[in-house]
Amino acid sequence: MRPAHPFDDDKLKEECGVFGVIGVTDAANFVALGLHALQHRGQEAGGIVSHDPVEGFNSARRFGYVRDSFTKQSLMETLPGPLAIGHVRYSTAGSKAAQIRDVQPFFGEFSMGGAAIAHNGNITNADALRRELIDRGSIFQSSSDSECIIHLMARSLQRNIPERMQDALRRVEGAFSIVAMTRTKLIGVRDPLGVRPLVLGRIGEGWALSSETCALDIIGAEFVREIEPGEMVVINQNGVESHFPFRKQPARFCIFEHVYFSRPDSIIGGRSVYETRRQIGVELAREAPVEADLVCPVPDSGTPAAIGFAHESGIPYGMGIIRNQYMGRTFIEPTEQIRNMGVRLKLNVNRALIRDKRVILVDDSVVRGTTSRKIKEMILDAGAKEVHFRIASPPTAWPCFYGVDTPQREKLLAATMSEDEMRDHLAVDSLKFISLDGLYRAVGEATGRDAKCPQYCDACFSGEYPVAPSDMIEKGFELKAAE
Amino acid sequence: MRPAHPFDDDKLKEECGVFGVIGVTDAANFVALGLHALQHRGQEAGGIVSHDPVEGFNSARRFGYVRDSFTKQSLMETLPGPLAIGHVRYSTAGSKAAQIRDVQPFFGEFSMGGAAIAHNGNITNADALRRELIDRGSIFQSSSDSECIIHLMARSLQRNIPERMQDALRRVEGAFSIVAMTRTKLIGVRDPLGVRPLVLGRIGEGWALSSETCALDIIGAEFVREIEPGEMVVINQNGVESHFPFRKQPARFCIFEHVYFSRPDSIIGGRSVYETRRQIGVELAREAPVEADLVCPVPDSGTPAAIGFAHESGIPYGMGIIRNQYMGRTFIEPTEQIRNMGVRLKLNVNRALIRDKRVILVDDSVVRGTTSRKIKEMILDAGAKEVHFRIASPPTAWPCFYGVDTPQREKLLAATMSEDEMRDHLAVDSLKFISLDGLYRAVGEATGRDAKCPQYCDACFSGEYPVAPSDMIEKGFELKAAE
Amino acid sequence: MRPAHPFDDDKLKEECGVFGVIGVTDAANFVALGLHALQHRGQEAGGIVSHDPVEGFNSARRFGYVRDSFTKQSLMETLPGPLAIGHVRYSTAGSKAAQIRDVQPFFGEFSMGGAAIAHNGNITNADALRRELIDRGSIFQSSSDSECIIHLMARSLQRNIPERMQDALRRVEGAFSIVAMTRTKLIGVRDPLGVRPLVLGRIGEGWALSSETCALDIIGAEFVREIEPGEMVVINQNGVESHFPFRKQPARFCIFEHVYFSRPDSIIGGRSVYETRRQIGVELAREAPVEADLVCPVPDSGTPAAIGFAHESGIPYGMGIIRNQYMGRTFIEPTEQIRNMGVRLKLNVNRALIRDKRVILVDDSVVRGTTSRKIKEMILDAGAKEVHFRIASPPTAWPCFYGVDTPQREKLLAATMSEDEMRDHLAVDSLKFISLDGLYRAVGEATGRDAKCPQYCDACFSGEYPVAPSDMIEKGFELKAAE
Amino acid sequence: MRPAHPFDDDKLKEECGVFGVIGVTDAANFVALGLHALQHRGQEAGGIVSHDPVEGFNSARRFGYVRDSFTKQSLMETLPGPLAIGHVRYSTAGSKAAQIRDVQPFFGEFSMGGAAIAHNGNITNADALRRELIDRGSIFQSSSDSECIIHLMARSLQRNIPERMQDALRRVEGAFSIVAMTRTKLIGVRDPLGVRPLVLGRIGEGWALSSETCALDIIGAEFVREIEPGEMVVINQNGVESHFPFRKQPARFCIFEHVYFSRPDSIIGGRSVYETRRQIGVELAREAPVEADLVCPVPDSGTPAAIGFAHESGIPYGMGIIRNQYMGRTFIEPTEQIRNMGVRLKLNVNRALIRDKRVILVDDSVVRGTTSRKIKEMILDAGAKEVHFRIASPPTAWPCFYGVDTPQREKLLAATMSEDEMRDHLAVDSLKFISLDGLYRAVGEATGRDAKCPQYCDACFSGEYPVAPSDMIEKGFELKAAE
Repeated sequence: MRPAHPFDDDKLKEECGVFGVIGVTDAANFVALGLHALQHRGQEAGGIVSHDPVEGFNSARRFGYVRDSFTKQSLMETLPGPLAIGHVRYSTAGSKAAQIRDVQPFFGEFSMGGAAIAHNGNITNADALRRELIDRGSIFQSSSDSECIIHLMARSLQRNIPERMQDALRRVEGAFSIVAMTRTKLIGVRDPLGVRPLVLGRIGEGWALSSETCALDIIGAEFVREIEPGEMVVINQNGVESHFPFRKQPARFCIFEHVYFSRPDSIIGGRSVYETRRQIGVELAREAPVEADLVCPVPDSGTPAAIGFAHESGIPYGMGIIRNQYMGRTFIEPTEQIRNMGVRLKLNVNRALIRDKRVILVDDSVVRGTTSRKIKEMILDAGAKEVHFRIASPPTAWPCFYGVDTPQREKLLAATMSEDEMRDHLAVDSLKFISLDGLYRAVGEATGRDAKCPQYCDACFSGEYPVAPSDMIEKGFELKAAE
Repeated sequence: MRPAHPFDDDKLKEECGVFGVIGVTDAANFVALGLHALQHRGQEAGGIVSHDPVEGFNSARRFGYVRDSFTKQSLMETLPGPLAIGHVRYSTAGSKAAQIRDVQPFFGEFSMGGAAIAHNGNITNADALRRELIDRGSIFQSSSDSECIIHLMARSLQRNIPERMQDALRRVEGAFSIVAMTRTKLIGVRDPLGVRPLVLGRIGEGWALSSETCALDIIGAEFVREIEPGEMVVINQNGVESHFPFRKQPARFCIFEHVYFSRPDSIIGGRSVYETRRQIGVELAREAPVEADLVCPVPDSGTPAAIGFAHESGIPYGMGIIRNQYMGRTFIEPTEQIRNMGVRLKLNVNRALIRDKRVILVDDSVVRGTTSRKIKEMILDAGAKEVHFRIASPPTAWPCFYGVDTPQREKLLAATMSEDEMRDHLAVDSLKFISLDGLYRAVGEATGRDAKCPQYCDACFSGEYPVAPSDMIEKGFELKAAE
Repeated sequence: MRPAHPFDDDKLKEECGVFGVIGVTDAANFVALGLHALQHRGQEAGGIVSHDPVEGFNSARRFGYVRDSFTKQSLMETLPGPLAIGHVRYSTAGSKAAQIRDVQPFFGEFSMGGAAIAHNGNITNADALRRELIDRGSIFQSSSDSECIIHLMARSLQRNIPERMQDALRRVEGAFSIVAMTRTKLIGVRDPLGVRPLVLGRIGEGWALSSETCALDIIGAEFVREIEPGEMVVINQNGVESHFPFRKQPARFCIFEHVYFSRPDSIIGGRSVYETRRQIGVELAREAPVEADLVCPVPDSGTPAAIGFAHESGIPYGMGIIRNQYMGRTFIEPTEQIRNMGVRLKLNVNRALIRDKRVILVDDSVVRGTTSRKIKEMILDAGAKEVHFRIASPPTAWPCFYGVDTPQREKLLAATMSEDEMRDHLAVDSLKFISLDGLYRAVGEATGRDAKCPQYCDACFSGEYPVAPSDMIEKGFELKAAE
Repeated sequence: MRPAHPFDDDKLKEECGVFGVIGVTDAANFVALGLHALQHRGQEAGGIVSHDPVEGFNSARRFGYVRDSFTKQSLMETLPGPLAIGHVRYSTAGSKAAQIRDVQPFFGEFSMGGAAIAHNGNITNADALRRELIDRGSIFQSSSDSECIIHLMARSLQRNIPERMQDALRRVEGAFSIVAMTRTKLIGVRDPLGVRPLVLGRIGEGWALSSETCALDIIGAEFVREIEPGEMVVINQNGVESHFPFRKQPARFCIFEHVYFSRPDSIIGGRSVYETRRQIGVELAREAPVEADLVCPVPDSGTPAAIGFAHESGIPYGMGIIRNQYMGRTFIEPTEQIRNMGVRLKLNVNRALIRDKRVILVDDSVVRGTTSRKIKEMILDAGAKEVHFRIASPPTAWPCFYGVDTPQREKLLAATMSEDEMRDHLAVDSLKFISLDGLYRAVGEATGRDAKCPQYCDACFSGEYPVAPSDMIEKGFELKAAE
């Protein structure tokens, strides 16, 4: 599971989690619980829309954690009805101030009634669509790419909302896992590549849609199946209808969901994410063994891989770095002294354990490298004899355009340095990343990556983008040269 | 490290952490960082008093986490000066509403100037002292036992504040580790038994006092030594003076600080708390072995003992239970549905890992047993074949009167049931607690507990109270019958 | 000036005030001051949009008084630039909870740039327009009638914003005084009848538009002239351009602005509102004299008429009813006891002055009659011998559809009772309203009302609506039968 | 009634209002209403203490207006019981930040039970008492002079609380009107001179004590009588006991209560304050007539005197200055532009009424003279031909030490200038203050002031202090030289 803390600017950030439920009493309560379980996918803000036959549509959008807003009876009472969807989005702290109007779900009133949508992913031709829609008289409320979808739906000539949604999504490029609702239907869709996850669950007589299975667990729903790439499900009291409105394509699920984004207790492709991460540690121990006294995770995301590494290598596992559990999401106007503390506010070295040891530090990824450097210094200050980094993902050398917040390419350490240069830059005794093939083996592809037709989207490692990022290319982004 | 979450009413709770610093610029900033590192000792509220030669004494007291209040520049600017102390106290959520006037440090203006005190521990004759002081015309501001100390100081005839404090503390029974300040001095005291911890650190030209060493680490202070039981240190620009104002007694440090209260990265008696807990797991594996497929900690406090148990037993270690990191401290008026979720909001089972396994769950303690029961159910629901509990402390059968919040004796599961009865009550395949001797061995007493003169305060396990709890006895509490 | 207090549900309520300024440094500060001076036109919420050549458009919308939000430096710094407009709207307390998205100005991004509009008045065909726009794919953000205008503008094929606005407003029926802005222009428009006020002021090298002159005074602007009915002014650095885009019609300014809505220190038609109200009192004393000992205003809106009445009648003027100045706008979840206090929280009788007197109470209007009844009781309880009501407006018998919040017709006392019946209903010694002709004389029409072609909109008194309220008629509202 | 607004630093400020009630259901609700009616006596903060036989003592203290805090059901429910007292205190905005611990009532737990006190007035030997009490071991919670009383009570050897209170108050010098409570009794006391007001009311089977009668009106209580100077009343279920614990002295009620502090609808000495102020206007018109076209009050406190002046002089009365009713109490960090607006935010000139007129402005007092100057400028800017100030009190030349916040003597305009010099300083056509004898006549002393033994405390005008201000004298304050 990944932490959500200040000074985490050295991690990639998922942009969203989505959840919806139909056919239960006070559906919004279930959505709140589901979003709480998906909070790791977005901590900046959350929103819920509900529908009740008498009260109609209601919505609430709040900054901050789900548990701080969407637990209060006074708020939840304003969201009645048996049908609700919700959304969490990640923190853009540091950039321009967030606006509540950017918080999803987005709602539109059409002549046949209202609809709300919650979108995980990123639309790669949103700028072009937005320009076109404005030219034709649409007024945008937000700066979000996702708002295009609702305007495209408003302009569709189809008679019902699921068909309007299909119309709209056929115009959209990029990644989308969407949970939507009308007055009577819960709708789920995944883009043809299935880049972002979306699963279906059964709760009593009702149904749930969720980004991950862990959010089904919290409401006591049974996991039914994954929504397939390119599938739209339309759920009402009569059950689940399945549609495939898009041209069929080979799936390209995001491999980084396995490495870092998803919660370790979620199940993807029939396998626990925890087990996959543990297996990455096993692969890493085989690929890049080193003599040492202690295998130590960088908490908390490096923990499963460290357990696997220790098990495979036979080197003792120990918690050499301890997290402060009271570290919050963000600070409002902190003193300079506190701003300068950085990672120390969050992590402390277990000095007595580290002293005089050769330490293997297992982390999930290296993005800018700034945190890795600080952690190495803390470990050496505490008296470690050697520091060996083992990284549970290949070098992150390319930005993601499918719903993950990545720094510009220049800021990615692996975009400008080789593995050896990174080792020297970080000044550690050794540094090894898992190979791309090793990673594919760990996720269950016994023969590794199929270079002709990769089984996953691994653009952040390989630079091979399964959908051309057309807005970015227009702005000057250069794709990897063909080899 | 222990979690601080709703539904944790099944844990014992430390009542306080104290921190002070002298001889640094903007001392209050350092105190804020120190208190943040000690937040596990108390989450309800925090307070800081500072002194500046020009601005005099200033104070701020706030409910909630240190990081939410004492990081803001606007607040910290109101606390100038080179000398400051602070206090965190634990959450009494559920009992009568907390009052800000109960939040320490307490401050008193005397004829020779002001003084502030922050107290960790509990005064066992506070009721009697309070009655006496009120009879003589003192007006109490708070309902806190600690306020007696400042009134006793106000009435002392001594000419300087350290001597008034000695006067006052000679009247006081029970446990106290105190950090106090005058306009020019930082003062630390521990009661003659040394029940609660207090350590001294060096930071540049200045000095720090802290409940635990982990708070010295965060400000970059060097750990100098523990304050000794019965010692008072008076620190000013000329250095550290040591006094021993009390009658000498054999020390009785709280053994539960090792088991649960202190942070794993703190060092007590030259040894990391993490290592002690890991060793408890080793002892437990020797004392109570069982055939199984997986050793799984109850996160997060059971983790080090589980690592030790797995290492000693050779059974694989795995994270079968995953914590939601976005679980907060408390809910304000939650909906009933959310209130009923209980432990599920905080913990989820890693279902794919648990299924069809014989699981050893390692937890730090059993208090009421309510949480253990729920966790067992979650594990069985996920398909475990067997559930074996191994507890890293002996049965908690007696309340603590020295600064720890324990339920009334009747509510303690171990007060009314034998180990076997508890196993049946929890309906698990086996349940074993570490023995008292095993625990003593793990903390480094090779020959176990000295029954004649125990090396620690272990009253919560043994019922042998090193200081008679006189207020409680007056209220009808019955001590264990002499054997 | 009219009060803005709880228990004022027995007053008609203006729905808005608008203000804009161009050509000054930090225009938003001036708008905040202007809105503060217009606060009597709307107390629920306010909004400001500003434009800066570097920072672009910025906006802020807040519930509550202008002085509570739009005075803080931290907020005002987010609204830079030499051009800004703002809006205050009235409190819908009691009805469905207000939503921040209903707070104006509304903003739209068009292909030629952004525009913001602030609207005072009411569009009487808004429902029909909204249906049409939704059918064509527009998505509404708010429940406000005013939002139609920005969508109509978005769909116009004109190349510049003022022309798009003309296009849009030609589709609109009802009353509108609008202040709008583009990146470089400040725009003002009044509907062809000129129902709501709008004035132009000069401030240094810049220009201001305001609902009333009192808001020019507060920023130190010089009053230039009223915007004419049917006029659009487009103001930029080159000065003020005037357009008349609508078919010319005889003007019908709202006569109730004179009676109650506008501030007494504002100037309408070259005459102070205070003086007009004082003159109403004079007319009333002539039309409906009575022997008495004291002329007493119902504070504060009855004061000028009471002064005029006392002057004309020679009966002493005195403050027999005293207002509590600390009465706020609203209560959040008050205790029942406080809710039941009603008007007593706001008004108290000056008992020693009232006792044994024959009292003439001068009030501005009678809507439901509930407050009049309570005031009469307070006066009698204090020992008055007689109570005579004199009302500074004719009986309010018809709802307003042009931007004033009136109860449904059935709730208007004068819709169902004659003057004598009202007197009996209120159980007072006498009750007289000014005649419609008397009112016209007081506003300066020496020969009274021109029944063929009334000089003002007086629909609330006469039932003669100058624009057919088409949405309401469709919902079943019945116009007065032709005589 | 006096306004409570920013930029009112040119007014004297009352320091407190007190209210208490016994023998009613939910007494705290009545206290809240009473304090709301007394809000003009203090706007900074308010507090209520209640007692319930089951729940014991409870208290709440809040910054801001009574109506904003003490109306909410959630708060009022925490203050149950048939007995409660409360206090409002004035705003020290601008000085050092207010602390909630300075907000009354103060509470003390004694051996015979708790007591709470609320004090209006000022103790002139508080510094000396405080030093003595600290020397003897008392710990002060606040910086308030009033806290001395509760510590003196705590140290009294008397067996019941009313007697302890008498003990304490015999040590106290200065002005005090106190409302206090024990578990079963409501207590009221006035100092021997009776400087501050205190009245008794009957409500059903219960009793109320209040600073002014207007607060009896709001709860529907009947005014019984004034508490006499030097009297203590002790009220319980058996009725009202009267005691006279102090040496008898001629009374010296504060004459400024008539001029400005009290509400116009309160009754003092059997006469409405409004009528007294009106009569001041009459006296002023006789003493200082001038030819003019308009008598105009400086709102709102100058209104009754202006009405009297107009009536006596035959010059028309008119509202030449209009108050903005939405002006609040204070601004938090306003922009510079808004800070510089000063009086304009609050007052606007009714330009059409003022133009070309000779205007008599009637104000209640001149303190620093800064506001008078600004108002004069506004009036001249609006085109007045002449400006004549008539002031409804004599020149304020001496500070008050009995519970009113006055600037230091040097800041009082009248302390350094003669009437003619003030006229020139303000640059007005004429300036006249009422004479001290004229003021005494207006309050009903037909023969004017008795110079040998003045009937009122008029120290602020005369410099004759009825109680020597001993703390101030020690700090160097010089009394007026004997003549």
